[in-house]
Amino acid sequence: MTIVAPDQAVLSRAPRLLVRPPIRIALLGLGQVGGAIATIAASPASGGGTFLIASTLVRDLQRPRSIDAGRLGLTASYGEPLRSKPDVLVEVLGGVEPARTLVLSALHSGIPVVTANKSLLAACGDELFAAAAAARVPLLYEASVLAGVPFLGTFARRPLASSAITGLRGIVNGTSNFIVSRMAHDRSGFDEALAAAQRAGYAEPDPAKDINGDDAVEKLCVLLRHFAGFSVKPSQIDHAGINGIDLADIAHARAFGGAVRPIVVADWAGDCPSAYAGPAYVSDGHPLCRIDGVQNAIGLTTRSSGELFFSGPGAGPAVTASTVLDDVIEAAAGSGGAIEAARPVTVSGLADAGWFLRISSSTLAESDAPALLSSLGVRLQRASHVDARAGEHSQWLLTHPCSRAHLDAALELLTSRTCCRHWCLPALD
Amino acid sequence: MTIVAPDQAVLSRAPRLLVRPPIRIALLGLGQVGGAIATIAASPASGGGTFLIASTLVRDLQRPRSIDAGRLGLTASYGEPLRSKPDVLVEVLGGVEPARTLVLSALHSGIPVVTANKSLLAACGDELFAAAAAARVPLLYEASVLAGVPFLGTFARRPLASSAITGLRGIVNGTSNFIVSRMAHDRSGFDEALAAAQRAGYAEPDPAKDINGDDAVEKLCVLLRHFAGFSVKPSQIDHAGINGIDLADIAHARAFGGAVRPIVVADWAGDCPSAYAGPAYVSDGHPLCRIDGVQNAIGLTTRSSGELFFSGPGAGPAVTASTVLDDVIEAAAGSGGAIEAARPVTVSGLADAGWFLRISSSTLAESDAPALLSSLGVRLQRASHVDARAGEHSQWLLTHPCSRAHLDAALELLTSRTCCRHWCLPALD
Repeated sequence: MTIVAPDQAVLSRAPRLLVRPPIRIALLGLGQVGGAIATIAASPASGGGTFLIASTLVRDLQRPRSIDAGRLGLTASYGEPLRSKPDVLVEVLGGVEPARTLVLSALHSGIPVVTANKSLLAACGDELFAAAAAARVPLLYEASVLAGVPFLGTFARRPLASSAITGLRGIVNGTSNFIVSRMAHDRSGFDEALAAAQRAGYAEPDPAKDINGDDAVEKLCVLLRHFAGFSVKPSQIDHAGINGIDLADIAHARAFGGAVRPIVVADWAGDCPSAYAGPAYVSDGHPLCRIDGVQNAIGLTTRSSGELFFSGPGAGPAVTASTVLDDVIEAAAGSGGAIEAARPVTVSGLADAGWFLRISSSTLAESDAPALLSSLGVRLQRASHVDARAGEHSQWLLTHPCSRAHLDAALELLTSRTCCRHWCLPALD
Repeated sequence: MTIVAPDQAVLSRAPRLLVRPPIRIALLGLGQVGGAIATIAASPASGGGTFLIASTLVRDLQRPRSIDAGRLGLTASYGEPLRSKPDVLVEVLGGVEPARTLVLSALHSGIPVVTANKSLLAACGDELFAAAAAARVPLLYEASVLAGVPFLGTFARRPLASSAITGLRGIVNGTSNFIVSRMAHDRSGFDEALAAAQRAGYAEPDPAKDINGDDAVEKLCVLLRHFAGFSVKPSQIDHAGINGIDLADIAHARAFGGAVRPIVVADWAGDCPSAYAGPAYVSDGHPLCRIDGVQNAIGLTTRSSGELFFSGPGAGPAVTASTVLDDVIEAAAGSGGAIEAARPVTVSGLADAGWFLRISSSTLAESDAPALLSSLGVRLQRASHVDARAGEHSQWLLTHPCSRAHLDAALELLTSRTCCRHWCLPALD
């Protein structure tokens, strides 16, 4: 891993700090991101004494490490980070515990917290932000979504811009986007594309959360709290992984002029907010169709002036570490103190969209599904030829927008009459 | 003009203020943007008392106005705005004087300033930022470039992200982009497209600065100060307008698979910074090719993690006003105090690029220019057929990247041998 440290004295461009530099950091976690944070913080180029790692919590003191940990105050004791009197606690452990307990304890002690941990924020956001608000200290999390693209803090500080936002759509998981992009370009199968992602260092050794959609839906929860003020848990949001997609789906999406992309989408303009995290068909003209490989992107729908669109590198340890340290500076400047309480809401799945369907049965004839769906008022944009593989006949269809309820009723009738199976993705124009 | 005011109490999401609300504003200018500022500030929806317009400087007190100016403290006296004891001075007069004198006087008095005025910043940036730094008060200008897309303040507050940036490319003038987009889509001529922009309310009654490139180069100066720390004047940057472009140029760009776009581009990764503002050929795969109509966009090149890309609505009075008022909140929260002094630099034009050429003469044969340029080592990607119009023969060529010096030498030889004229745009892949 190459860490490129900034070549300017950092604090010459920073906001005014409330503490005297160096900013004392208690670092929780010394994995890939933690290691990159330690490296950048120690680099003379990053301001010569802007940051000081006062203590570093690790699980195993004896584990061999690629970075020189001699001056990082390594400890395996949960109490030590706060005893080191940090100006800011940085949490990059991942997962819920012990991160939750340690972050809460810092906030209760009035110590600002910077975290990159979307799992923690998605699972315990109410509790954490309440603690931060009670103590009037910053809890910043720019690196938790689109780690390489600063936008969350921007809108937190800009209430007029923020209150104009009524929806979002994006690609927030680089690994799964890499996999579906690779499948489309190389016509490689899922396992092969996943192996390529792992070889390239994009996928974790255990990529389950990227592939089953858990990572994306956790990030969507963070985004919904941030932009809509919603308190909502991952389990309450309709979501799916990319593991149900095969090469034929991707090839037919391409033949229809679009692509399969692992997206998040949400809308809260009306009274019934909706959200979805998972694969979708996106048409060629859709801005997310062009977000390829490990790129991430987010589009924010505004009430009156179109869409704001942000894209860039999704993650990687060096980018994430840099973003965390910028948050450390923000936290030491007292930024992010005013936190609105989020309200619990019921969020439905996508109610109206076009739909990308795969219909399969052992006996499917080319006109069966199109004819029946059309007769039931589901209007089709495209229909593939029937593709016979391994004894099963499959056909792909792309519908014009219609309600999910209407589609489901039509698919139920289709299934009962033809003994077919179906699989369905939302389709975005 | 419809102003949609935010529907949430603004200050529940704002950073902590250093002043007690309402934030007292002295408003300089009550044109389209000033009027929208007054409207949003007075809207009960925008926080119920977040803002108070304490005084409003106008040129002509008697002029009929579409908004109710009764509670805006209208004055035509230059001294009155500061006498109204504002927390923040908002300058939306445009132009250099009296804006410069009034802004300096506010800064000298320790009053934070928010401006949307790129002409002022481009002409007098050194003086204004020095005054702000000396008084340690914010001078914020988010609305001066990509008024609808918050990104300048973001990077001002995030020194690690900011110091990783080594170049930029973007579309920062919506009017000229609308015109060239319209010419491409409708095959309408320049004058017709300009008239359409004026009818749609995108172009000013006097659109000279949009069309001759002055607006874009002023914004580029603001961006170069912001991201590169360069003090550079519009006259020191290679720039051009879109007024030299005709429909045939745009049609041939399209035939080559790309588009003509009014861009800004700069690179300061090496020792010889380069910059250009003006029309360019951009290939189909280039992200700026897809920025259509009045959309604006900026891509920021980073040292190690690819490009950050931001796009959205360029301007419009309501969007600009909303951005200005978010800056007012930032200013009242004390944000933006640390301002790095910019250094004077020499910025060359683009030295290496592909080039999109139009070669014209009364006698041009199809192989003349391609053969000669190729023999001189200028490698061609594409060449059009010769197009004979109004007695003149023209041909369009697209070169592979080569140095401008090499191209100029080849074109000089071509001209001397064939009596042709040439016209040239940089071509970006």
